[in-house]
Order: sequence, then C-alpha cells, then structure tokens
Amino acid sequence: MKALNVAVVGALGAVGGEMLKTLEQRAFPIRSIKPLDVAVNVSREIVFAGRRVAVQEAREGAFEDVDLALFSAGSEASLALAPAAVREGSVVVDNSSAWRMEADVPLVVPEVNPEALRLHKGIIANPNCSTIQMVVALKPLHELFKIRRVVVSTYQAVSGSGQRAIDELRRQAEQFCRGEAVTHEVYPYQILFNALPHIDVFLENGYTKEEMKMVDETHKILDPAIAVTATTVRIPAFRGHSESINIETERKADLAQAREALRAAKGVVLADDPQRLVYPLALGSEGTDDVYVGRLRLDESVENGMNFWVVADNLRKGAALNAVQIAEKMLEMNLI
Amino acid sequence: MKALNVAVVGALGAVGGEMLKTLEQRAFPIRSIKPLDVAVNVSREIVFAGRRVAVQEAREGAFEDVDLALFSAGSEASLALAPAAVREGSVVVDNSSAWRMEADVPLVVPEVNPEALRLHKGIIANPNCSTIQMVVALKPLHELFKIRRVVVSTYQAVSGSGQRAIDELRRQAEQFCRGEAVTHEVYPYQILFNALPHIDVFLENGYTKEEMKMVDETHKILDPAIAVTATTVRIPAFRGHSESINIETERKADLAQAREALRAAKGVVLADDPQRLVYPLALGSEGTDDVYVGRLRLDESVENGMNFWVVADNLRKGAALNAVQIAEKMLEMNLI
Repeated sequence: MKALNVAVVGALGAVGGEMLKTLEQRAFPIRSIKPLDVAVNVSREIVFAGRRVAVQEAREGAFEDVDLALFSAGSEASLALAPAAVREGSVVVDNSSAWRMEADVPLVVPEVNPEALRLHKGIIANPNCSTIQMVVALKPLHELFKIRRVVVSTYQAVSGSGQRAIDELRRQAEQFCRGEAVTHEVYPYQILFNALPHIDVFLENGYTKEEMKMVDETHKILDPAIAVTATTVRIPAFRGHSESINIETERKADLAQAREALRAAKGVVLADDPQRLVYPLALGSEGTDDVYVGRLRLDESVENGMNFWVVADNLRKGAALNAVQIAEKMLEMNLI
Repeated sequence: MKALNVAVVGALGAVGGEMLKTLEQRAFPIRSIKPLDVAVNVSREIVFAGRRVAVQEAREGAFEDVDLALFSAGSEASLALAPAAVREGSVVVDNSSAWRMEADVPLVVPEVNPEALRLHKGIIANPNCSTIQMVVALKPLHELFKIRRVVVSTYQAVSGSGQRAIDELRRQAEQFCRGEAVTHEVYPYQILFNALPHIDVFLENGYTKEEMKMVDETHKILDPAIAVTATTVRIPAFRGHSESINIETERKADLAQAREALRAAKGVVLADDPQRLVYPLALGSEGTDDVYVGRLRLDESVENGMNFWVVADNLRKGAALNAVQIAEKMLEMNLI
C-alpha cells in the first residue's frame, strides 16, 4: 500500500490532536507527518509515533510536499488555505463547515455515501459531528422503512466547542467544589449543571446554524427527501454527543428488523437491552470508534414511527475518525 | 379567608421541604402546620415561619385534626395513608404517582384544568414534574392551533430523584475535583458529565414509566386526542427541567400569535429573544415559580408545526408549588 505525506492543519486543537492520535492508532500508511497550525507564535511540538515533531505555520506554500491534508483549524483557515493546498497538489479532507454545502465538494460519511468521493475536485468535506452519528444510525433504517421525517434533539458535549470549552467546564467544576463564584468566557452562560439550547449562531429563521447543519447535511449525505427538524443543546459532558431521534417512516417500522439491520450495519453497535441497563451512554463512548444505538421503541403517536437514542464520541466518529476514514476509503478507491 | 390546619407528609424530603417553603412564601392561610414523615427514627425538627416544629410519624390517626394534607413521601406512603387521611376528614393533594390515573381522582394543573377539582372525592393528584411544565406551555398553543401531536425530549435535573440524588451529583463533582474515582449509588451509572436515557423503570413497550406518564397525564389533564411520544433523560443539573418540544397542529402555526398567547398565559414567562441571548435556562429557573418558554420557531418539516424549549424549576412548579396552587384554587372555589 502506498504511504503518504500527511499534514494536519490545526494540530494543536482538540480535533487536530485526535486526528494525529487516530492516524497512529489505525496505522494509516504515512511516509511523513507535518503538523501545522495557524498563529504559531512560540515553538511547539507534538509527539507522533514516539517522535517529537515541530509544529509549523499553516500558510500557502506549506503543502508542496503534502499528499493529504487533514484540516481542522476553523472555517477561516479552511477558506483561506484549502484551495492553496489543492493547488500545491494535496487532497484536502476538511473538518470545518466552510465547504460542506458547495455543490462540487463531496460531503461524506464512508458508511453512508462513499460513492460521492469519486466526484471530488481536491476538497472533501467532513460533516458536522451531530450529523455524522445521526446519518450512520439512519442509513440502515432508511433502507428498511424509508424515512419520511426526523425530529431530533441533541445532548452535546463541550469538546465540540474545542479545547477552551473543555477547560471552561473543568474550571467551573473546580470553582464549584471550592465554593467560588463560577465564571464563564467561552459560553454565554455557565454550562456546569445547566443545558444551553444554543450551539453556533442564531439565524433569521430562529434556528441555530448547528440545527440547520443537521437538516442540510442530512439532505446532502443521505436523502434530500427526508424532512428534518432539529433542536441542538449543549450539556455539561466532556465527550460524547447523545441524540434523541424520532423518525416517521413510509413502511411499517418493525423493531426486530430494525435491530437486525443495526446489528449488521458497519460502524454501528446496537446497545439495546434496557431491562439489563444496556443503552448508549456519552461516558461509555469516549475514545471509541462506534456509533451506539439503543432505546429502540415504536412510536404509537403516528402510524409508522420509532424513537431511539444515538451516542458517539464527537471527537472520534464525529470528527477525527470520520476524516481519517474518508482518507482510507479514498486510498481503497484509488482516489489519492 | 379561613385558615387551615395543614400537614406535610414527607416533610424531610426534597419536595416536602419545598412545600413548607412555598406555603410560607405564598402566605398560605395556615392555622397550624404539622410536618409528618415516614420512619422518623430520631427526633427531627423543621423550621416554619420562624418556629421550630417537631416532625411526627406519618400514620393512621395523624390526620384527625388536619384540613389539608400535602403528600410527598412516595407512592407506597400515599397508597397506605391518603385514604386514611381522607377518612379522618382531610383533603389530600398527593404528589406521588399512586393515584394520578384513577378515574375518580382529579389530576390538576390549576392553569390548565381547574374545573376538574369539582369532582374530587378527597384525593387530588399532583401531576409528574415533566408533565406539569409541558401542559402549561401547551395549553395556550392548543387553544390557538389545536395540537395534534407532541414529540418531547427532556433534560431533567437530579433533584427530581430526591435529596440522595442531589447529594450524589455533588459528591461526584467533589470526587472529580479531587481526582478520585467517581462512585454511584442512586443512579445505575455516573450522572456527572453524562446523560442517562433512563428515568423510572422500563416497561414492556420499551418506554420508561416517566415517558408514559408524560403521555397518559397529558391526555388526562389537557386532551386525550393529542398524540404524545416522549424520551426522558437525566442530565447533570441540580434543579430545573428543560424540554425540547415539537408540536404538529391542525391549524397553521403562527409565531406572532403563539408569542402573544404565551405572553398572556398565566404561569408562563416568554423568554424568546435568542439574538440577545434570551432563552429559558435551567440555572435561571431555580427557586422561581414560572414556566419559561422560548426558542419558538416554525417547523418546516411538516405542514403545521413548531419547535420550542420549556424550562421550569421541577421542585417548585413541577411539584411543591403546583400542589400548593391546587390547594389555593380549592379554597377559591370553596372546595375545602
């Protein structure tokens, strides 16, 4: 198998760090690793495969010797540098939202729509964390019952907002334990012991950008005919997004069939035996690769419907892992 | 106004304590207060209106001199003692789930169905916390648009499980801060930094009892024609239940009309200006009496639909306050 020169843009961030770890753990075929980041003022290093590697500045010209660039340094950096990286000969897998809805940019979850990769023109977009785990769970159910509508409410971990948010939740817990006033900088309100119905910015229609990502990206990845409405909420968890999903289907939903299909689905773990306390949990998902589905039950409030609970590690399958899996799939399809 | 001899059964519990506080704060017309609890082994006192009052054992015979008994000591105590209290001449407002679905027991939220109080035979049931705040928000919208279906996902605080659960979350935070292993006794898994899709016991149909309470109680209180499906989830918050609610309506949903009706509705505070970061929050609800409604937006995934976010203090409006309001309404209607 050919080995690649790989750059990680945003190597000092929460997702960038997870990308490096994922590349190591999955023994991705790497000839050289090039950690890049924006605004590298001081000399910083990362450790990759036991070796210290200096982080360099992400800028035009940095991709001349790069085959594959994994971007996770925010939309601004992706808008500015991804086209340059492509011009310099690199394939870009971009974790930001900058390119996701562009018509000629494939938006891919390898278990759901790998064929879209064939149309790439250099940039492939990695979907939003909350979308990825949802469409992985929806895919086998859509094939079985044809999903007409999805109502989803999320319970999202702070790591989705990056390292500063992780630090903020930890600091708030420590302030609480010391009996001090709890302060906040990253979120507009205290996140500890709270639930914030506010992720990303508010749009004209009253929805947040995060909520509309779940709608628009599901259409692009899975099926534009599925009606989706979302409420996205931040809760005080460090890692692991949870989702309460209600679907209405064209064909009669059947629990045994649904469980069988989910058990067989790639990337899915069926965790559905509530009487024995088996159901997906954010804390149990940390550091794992799978999308956990459980609490399956028929929804008696519609003719054909079903409720279930989906959990995945937002930094792994929701970000770093899916990006690496896209690159793996492209190697397998001879697209890199 | 006549003054009553009032007993609080479960005076040492989280809701019982809140009942005593609520009676004080609202200047409920009290001649005498009688705090009762089950299994009072040691001599315990509560403070009411500046005076120390000994807690007595809740048992048959304890209600001879009582006009009004507020029960919140669990279903077992309510099943055993509420009929005795009625025989001894007391009106019982019961916060447990023991009597809620009995045909001759009114299940009442004063803002929603006060007329049901006229049919009482001694026991009036206080609905489940998550149901109360939902029906208060649904009522004005049902009158406007006629609700056909509700899909609700909850974000519930640990105080709903009582004082031991409050202590458990606090202890887990302290263990985390000290770098110790986090232990659990009340919940089957760590609640700190997690989300448990499991409240009350699991039933044959895969739903929890808590989820079916939201279905059945909404039918009894508001309208049996409304189809309801629920997913109830415990999150690491101390106080304040949050709910993500999606409704489908018969008539076209209109945001301006909805906001006007909610602004005018008794017991509701409209907190709906997301661009200025105004939306309901669990932390902001603590110790307050209102049901906060915000994040109102049309649901484009159905012909007539709407999403919104509802928060209330589960120990106040979700339990103690609603029970006291039932008693106030009965006084007003000359039913006590």
